[in-house]
Amino acid sequence: MADPRSGQPVPTAALAAFAAETRYEQLGPAVVRQVKRCLLDFLGQVIGAADEPALRHAQAAVEALGGRPQALVFGTGLRTSARQAALLNGVASNSLDFDDTHFPTVLHPTGPALSAALAVGEWQRVSGQELVAGFAVGFEVECRVALAVHPEHYEAGWHITGTAGTFGGAAAAGRLLGLDAQRMRWALGLAGSQAGGVREQFGAMAKALHVGNAAANGVFSALLARHGFDATEQIFEGRRGFPAVASSGQHLERLVDGLGQRWEFEHLGFKPYACGVVLHAVLDALLQIRTRHQPAPEEVERIEARVHPLVLELADRPEPESGLAARISVQHGAAMTLLDGACGASQFSDQAVQRPASVALRRKVALTADSSLGEDQAEVRLLLRDGRRLEARVEAASGSPRNPLSDQQLREKFHDLVWPYLPRWKEERLLELIERVEELEDAGAFADLLEPTESA
Amino acid sequence: MADPRSGQPVPTAALAAFAAETRYEQLGPAVVRQVKRCLLDFLGQVIGAADEPALRHAQAAVEALGGRPQALVFGTGLRTSARQAALLNGVASNSLDFDDTHFPTVLHPTGPALSAALAVGEWQRVSGQELVAGFAVGFEVECRVALAVHPEHYEAGWHITGTAGTFGGAAAAGRLLGLDAQRMRWALGLAGSQAGGVREQFGAMAKALHVGNAAANGVFSALLARHGFDATEQIFEGRRGFPAVASSGQHLERLVDGLGQRWEFEHLGFKPYACGVVLHAVLDALLQIRTRHQPAPEEVERIEARVHPLVLELADRPEPESGLAARISVQHGAAMTLLDGACGASQFSDQAVQRPASVALRRKVALTADSSLGEDQAEVRLLLRDGRRLEARVEAASGSPRNPLSDQQLREKFHDLVWPYLPRWKEERLLELIERVEELEDAGAFADLLEPTESA
Repeated sequence: MADPRSGQPVPTAALAAFAAETRYEQLGPAVVRQVKRCLLDFLGQVIGAADEPALRHAQAAVEALGGRPQALVFGTGLRTSARQAALLNGVASNSLDFDDTHFPTVLHPTGPALSAALAVGEWQRVSGQELVAGFAVGFEVECRVALAVHPEHYEAGWHITGTAGTFGGAAAAGRLLGLDAQRMRWALGLAGSQAGGVREQFGAMAKALHVGNAAANGVFSALLARHGFDATEQIFEGRRGFPAVASSGQHLERLVDGLGQRWEFEHLGFKPYACGVVLHAVLDALLQIRTRHQPAPEEVERIEARVHPLVLELADRPEPESGLAARISVQHGAAMTLLDGACGASQFSDQAVQRPASVALRRKVALTADSSLGEDQAEVRLLLRDGRRLEARVEAASGSPRNPLSDQQLREKFHDLVWPYLPRWKEERLLELIERVEELEDAGAFADLLEPTESA
Repeated sequence: MADPRSGQPVPTAALAAFAAETRYEQLGPAVVRQVKRCLLDFLGQVIGAADEPALRHAQAAVEALGGRPQALVFGTGLRTSARQAALLNGVASNSLDFDDTHFPTVLHPTGPALSAALAVGEWQRVSGQELVAGFAVGFEVECRVALAVHPEHYEAGWHITGTAGTFGGAAAAGRLLGLDAQRMRWALGLAGSQAGGVREQFGAMAKALHVGNAAANGVFSALLARHGFDATEQIFEGRRGFPAVASSGQHLERLVDGLGQRWEFEHLGFKPYACGVVLHAVLDALLQIRTRHQPAPEEVERIEARVHPLVLELADRPEPESGLAARISVQHGAAMTLLDGACGASQFSDQAVQRPASVALRRKVALTADSSLGEDQAEVRLLLRDGRRLEARVEAASGSPRNPLSDQQLREKFHDLVWPYLPRWKEERLLELIERVEELEDAGAFADLLEPTESA
């Protein structure tokens, strides 16, 4: 794994060997626990997204093309090729804007890696331990690729989940297809030629396609490599490799430093609100104010929020035109929090965007950028007609790594998402499968349970 | 199509309307003639690539996934989904390095647009005139996208056929799926999120995947848009659109200037040699010297070539490790030209690379960069043991737009490629179908003819 001249590790070779050869036993209990939280959070979202237009439209396109029934689309019951199942589950995982976040890079890592791992795992009927290991190495690879190009790559306008995620999808799928380290290098190389997605898509369905493509193109990369289709063996360190081409800054040491010793799972946060993570600190603050003071919406004269500059760049949208666009509107999120005391999926429907009370409150939001604040921090002040000023400051948004959701909170989020779609017994059985995933002989058990049946 | 404030054309809207609405009658005879030359050249290559490992391995991956039998893979007889047929035909079209070139940008435009057009055209059973129109608009769109980011985008390390080609695939497929201008905007937007490919892959099979993906992801973009999956409507002019994100220089006026009046077909060149276009001027010069003087290979002491600097950047490979790598080795191309007096597909086989006479001659090549020369120019001097110096200067490489191949030369190239795979009657019938493509009621006639049958 070391360069014979410099003695330095060669990143592509090192990551490929890590992905191909890390055993389940090497993961350790903290990683396995976090993997189960990812599984819970992911499955809640892909089931809860069943009626999302992005998923429905993408599924219609996939059904027109056909494919072997290798893996389940969890929200809809379609069985299609592993590549296409990974695509549709990836689209579903992002289309509620409720998916987890790798805080150092704003990558949403579970969607690409777990969509790929579950689809290939079901197809290949791997064990639960292999599923966990496959997802874990995929997750780690994509986070490290993201770190290697952050922040320049994201700042240039790339959607890092679409780009870095493809390497995670390839690593997870390659692992579960049994690639050796040599073919894993090709798979990572092929991922580097299939990675894409620009931030101009934020607010459109195409954003969720980036996540689906990261998973699906990862699967295809691994499958091509398995069949002998070769690629550069230096996708990371090569002069025209992915970091050099797609980022003005490269930090390749982050690909390998401490690889296998420390895991990026510790920098992961799960979302309490169904919207862009940059909104969350503001919503936390407003929820605190609402709980403490119960201000009547019609009494609110002005909502002042001091936030990290990225919040304004990404989410300053006073007039979102749809539920999708509203998920990155701090104005809409603030309005709905004050009105409903919650910001789940139903607060970001197309109907919610049209509610007159929301429209009125959105116009009262005044944002100020403050670079002394972190992305997970905010200061909010509510001015009421009677002259009162209600204030709250959030030091670490709920769901951020510094203020993580509890297992109980994650189960409540899961229940809120799945109850319209799953009978209670299936929900309970699913929780049980997740809890003892490492004991499963066949990782296809998730799909077998969730496949629609007459009796369901 | 014009911005209401500035009065300037809005590029995405203008290109979408052009792709959706240009009628066959508006193409004019020069465009139709060039389309037929593209069809001939493309079909020769995809049939002649039947035994290429890149195609075989990619096909194995595709067959593992399955798909409806909508369109033919010309070289192998597989029928699969339109997306996957476009992928495999695109891979085939590039894997002999014999595909045509848009000289202003080094884009290989026919592969992406025609792979997409033929697959969707067969699936949808469009007319011959529609096929011609669909390919023509796809070709024009991708050339203009390439012009809009050239040269900065290519210089940064992007493989422009993989990136710009995706827009061409989407425009061609969208046209043949009957998208209106609105949905065509989404299709172009989706193409911008699926475009990729880095030059680090040159010399590996992954390079041809870029061409296949451009076609296949173009088809998928169009299909998604057809089913209502939306995307940014400003993929070109948006602040985080494709040109802004993937190129340090943007030339958006080239997207629309003279659109529909002049066509980029006039800047297209067809290859006389089965290798990177940057080698061609050198090979021309050596062929002239060989024809004139018949030097014995063992008499050659040194081969000096002055070339455009890009030739050294891309193709200075004295020890290519495979036939694939040899296609961008000016040393190997020069050696084979002197040895065989030809540089077709068989001069770039893995066996040819191992020939002792080729290995010996390759080591005698000395390259000098000279930026006063164009990419289609070269000066070559052969030094012989007896002291003779044989020289030739090429002002415009054969196959370049300034020195185009004749129809007869294209037919000979076609024959050399297809004769091992097609019985003579099929070859003749295929030439006839190409010649009267505008009279065909069903563009699927190409696939119907080329589908393997017992009697073939």
